[in-house]
Amino acid sequence: MLVKEARDVRPQPVHDEGAANVRMAVLIGPDEGAPNFVMRRIELDAQGHTPYHSHPWEHVVFVLEGLGVLRGEKGDLPLSPGDSAFVPPGEVHQFVAAEESPLTFLCTIPKR
Amino acid sequence: MLVKEARDVRPQPVHDEGAANVRMAVLIGPDEGAPNFVMRRIELDAQGHTPYHSHPWEHVVFVLEGLGVLRGEKGDLPLSPGDSAFVPPGEVHQFVAAEESPLTFLCTIPKR
Repeated sequence: MLVKEARDVRPQPVHDEGAANVRMAVLIGPDEGAPNFVMRRIELDAQGHTPYHSHPWEHVVFVLEGLGVLRGEKGDLPLSPGDSAFVPPGEVHQFVAAEESPLTFLCTIPKR
Repeated sequence: MLVKEARDVRPQPVHDEGAANVRMAVLIGPDEGAPNFVMRRIELDAQGHTPYHSHPWEHVVFVLEGLGVLRGEKGDLPLSPGDSAFVPPGEVHQFVAAEESPLTFLCTIPKR
């Protein structure tokens, strides 16, 4: 077993097409020996966003700090600290920070 | 996709043998359509603890609030907010809240 201290986590900029002002750190994944899934910490600056896209794996999400929305084909769902969220495989989605607030969340995906 | 608001989560007491002053809520799991894993929110009162046990599935953990330790065969690893942790399948472990602080964490497991 292992514990990774918060201060040892260094999020790195995400340069994926369609992403703006996003940083990510893998907290627990293959490097830590996790056999099935990968837990990442994702930080958006105010007005930052992930790509509006879909992929064949799901997202299991927990909001840590800040405000924003989870955007999909049917509109926006608001996100606040303590909220959890689920994006099914194949569904178009985007995380968008609020105009004047950053947004930080955990996003767990299956190991690929 | 869905968002489950923090205020709609109602942790329930855990009465497993070896558990003391533990409550748990499933945040995202089969009921939300998650195909691969289950994210739970676990709350220990001060001095509360989960069972000292092992099982053939892993834990992927993120500490939300409070203080405590992750106990294993080699001793205790301290836990503070923002820390993440990994317990491999088959390894004996126990989560223990501090003497004077509760401990709240997310614990994700594979769907069984």
